[in-house]
Amino acid sequence: MAPPLDTVWFLSDYGLDDEFVGVVKGVVKSIAPEVTVVDLTHQIPAYDIRAGSLALARSMQYLAPGVVLAVVDPGVGSARRAVAVEVGSDDVTAFLVGPDNGLLAPAVAMVGGARRAVSLTNPDYQIPAPGPTFAGRDVMAPAAAHLCAGLELDLLGDPVDPLSLLPGLVPLSRQEEGRTIGEVLWIDRFGNAQLNVDPDEIEAIEGPLLVRAGDQARVAVRVSSFSELKTGQVGVIVDSYGLVAVVLDQRSAADELRLHTGSAVTLEAVPD
Amino acid sequence: MAPPLDTVWFLSDYGLDDEFVGVVKGVVKSIAPEVTVVDLTHQIPAYDIRAGSLALARSMQYLAPGVVLAVVDPGVGSARRAVAVEVGSDDVTAFLVGPDNGLLAPAVAMVGGARRAVSLTNPDYQIPAPGPTFAGRDVMAPAAAHLCAGLELDLLGDPVDPLSLLPGLVPLSRQEEGRTIGEVLWIDRFGNAQLNVDPDEIEAIEGPLLVRAGDQARVAVRVSSFSELKTGQVGVIVDSYGLVAVVLDQRSAADELRLHTGSAVTLEAVPD
Amino acid sequence: MAPPLDTVWFLSDYGLDDEFVGVVKGVVKSIAPEVTVVDLTHQIPAYDIRAGSLALARSMQYLAPGVVLAVVDPGVGSARRAVAVEVGSDDVTAFLVGPDNGLLAPAVAMVGGARRAVSLTNPDYQIPAPGPTFAGRDVMAPAAAHLCAGLELDLLGDPVDPLSLLPGLVPLSRQEEGRTIGEVLWIDRFGNAQLNVDPDEIEAIEGPLLVRAGDQARVAVRVSSFSELKTGQVGVIVDSYGLVAVVLDQRSAADELRLHTGSAVTLEAVPD
Repeated sequence: MAPPLDTVWFLSDYGLDDEFVGVVKGVVKSIAPEVTVVDLTHQIPAYDIRAGSLALARSMQYLAPGVVLAVVDPGVGSARRAVAVEVGSDDVTAFLVGPDNGLLAPAVAMVGGARRAVSLTNPDYQIPAPGPTFAGRDVMAPAAAHLCAGLELDLLGDPVDPLSLLPGLVPLSRQEEGRTIGEVLWIDRFGNAQLNVDPDEIEAIEGPLLVRAGDQARVAVRVSSFSELKTGQVGVIVDSYGLVAVVLDQRSAADELRLHTGSAVTLEAVPD
Repeated sequence: MAPPLDTVWFLSDYGLDDEFVGVVKGVVKSIAPEVTVVDLTHQIPAYDIRAGSLALARSMQYLAPGVVLAVVDPGVGSARRAVAVEVGSDDVTAFLVGPDNGLLAPAVAMVGGARRAVSLTNPDYQIPAPGPTFAGRDVMAPAAAHLCAGLELDLLGDPVDPLSLLPGLVPLSRQEEGRTIGEVLWIDRFGNAQLNVDPDEIEAIEGPLLVRAGDQARVAVRVSSFSELKTGQVGVIVDSYGLVAVVLDQRSAADELRLHTGSAVTLEAVPD
Repeated sequence: MAPPLDTVWFLSDYGLDDEFVGVVKGVVKSIAPEVTVVDLTHQIPAYDIRAGSLALARSMQYLAPGVVLAVVDPGVGSARRAVAVEVGSDDVTAFLVGPDNGLLAPAVAMVGGARRAVSLTNPDYQIPAPGPTFAGRDVMAPAAAHLCAGLELDLLGDPVDPLSLLPGLVPLSRQEEGRTIGEVLWIDRFGNAQLNVDPDEIEAIEGPLLVRAGDQARVAVRVSSFSELKTGQVGVIVDSYGLVAVVLDQRSAADELRLHTGSAVTLEAVPD
């Protein structure tokens, strides 16, 4: 018999140089041999809860049924809770497991909010360990595996009011004197800079846009694909997640405009 | 019932810092839950079609039955076609899915050429998206998954004449006054430099070889394993793909001889 | 029928830039299609047998039943043997496959020692190759796959006396005039420095410890989780493997104390 859920979707800041990711998979397979652990990414910058939460939120709608295991956990071993959160509707139920530090919050919100949650306090479903520093291996991976294998959520630990879960911090853009002031949410491998700006926020501006960031000011044309841009030309695109991004064709917009995650970016009409 | 094909072999220039690879796996598993996606590599340098095509060609003969999904796609969203190509003989049928930009061509040639091909134009087998910039996720991954699940190739889109597929660019070596002039196809992690030179091209030269590259000229001995070389000694080896490579023992030949992918390298007899 | 063992746990120094890891998986799946290959890590520094052997030993107790395939093999193609080693008790049998260069030794010891071993000399269970330089693909991966598929160990090659397997080199700490002198076994992604020191070796020292390494001398407090440390404060912790580690909270102890793998570290009482 196949287990109720056969996939763990795994995101962390563990990196790939150490054996952390492999060991977590060993723990999952020891408990639930039929389960496949699929990596989302493990290269979230160390301790960067916000970057992890955004990567997870971007992924959610594309995942198949299963349990999400997400570990970016600077407070490991402290009083912060480790939690399992049930989400989904009546016909599709799934779980997210991770630290209660805001990491899971945007992803949970994206799939309709938490139905139930527990704090992972029951040692019967944990691996004994010499210390509390590797909770991904000892506490969270076992919880994800047991949920895949059909364990009742309640058995993992004490119930938690979903409203008490730490919210995520997603920065909001704002409008000011005809300008849209946003910030860079994410720089991807290709140097594209995704902003926290919806396309309709810049709809009123006709033609090209003036993009300001730090001491840079560049005229950007609106395009729907990279290849519409001439070499070195800055573009504004609706990216594959439906957000506004600053891009170049086959070059890094982040390098060109000296953008980093969190950089403030202003979009406005090009002055006459 | 197991699906007709249960493995997607996945190569890209997506890197591992972002969640791109994980999201593509989510799309595949949402369509074809029994399928396993196995990574070849995702660290092809961004936009480097040639490097991707060579890595894919080197891999082909070692893969088990399945669908190859390869995405190095600088022209994403432009007029370049995304294609699915059927290869194989009557008893082993398999498919390659990717952009029609030469990336697939050497791999297709290596397994006997294309039997049929289609352009991925049927939106019924694509994921709706805000824009065309992530075709790996929205167009190609669904095609690979549906082919694994047994969908008829024809249903993915318009038929394409296999002869119209963009060929790959594999550089040829040449003979000139007793010299073999080739170039570096690939520098691997260990710094070994694979050339586009077959062993029989240098068979006529007896004893050690003079290896020239840029302003470097080094005498290289012929060996069949790295450990035959003394510390710092340059060697010429028939590598694990049957091509001539310039190597050192436990050191990087690329660093030692300042070689890069594409560097011209001349092999000749050592002058008396 | 499921094969007797359905997982290969794979560790190497192949890195992720090339397609080596994917090709090995292709070879395994070509021989044993039901087998899943799970990566431990492939970012062991090139040729670093000691780092690979320690990562493997740290992983062993967390792996589910299967075959361990470990390849850090600077002597590939030389007279060094490639071996398959049987470990385990009567009800749990498993195998390790790799070069006989000490890489497997600490892991084998950790699970109770070798019961039987063979040298992988039988060409019937190898892939023909143009040269001997990619034994991971041509010799060891096929052996791991055939063992998963139920092949008798004896058939892979000549029997080897387990006592003749090359031992690993795990450095021992020592006590000297009330000091514990150890060395850094491992620096993890977060910069935590694991020492070859057991907690009971420093039990006799009360209160904080003086940590010396190179020209650095720092007072370290004993904590059980990172978050007990103030910003910039050095701590000594029992890590998740039960060994003493030098750490900071959300900062790299390796950077702060200029530690490297192999650095000598002295722990002693803080002088009055």
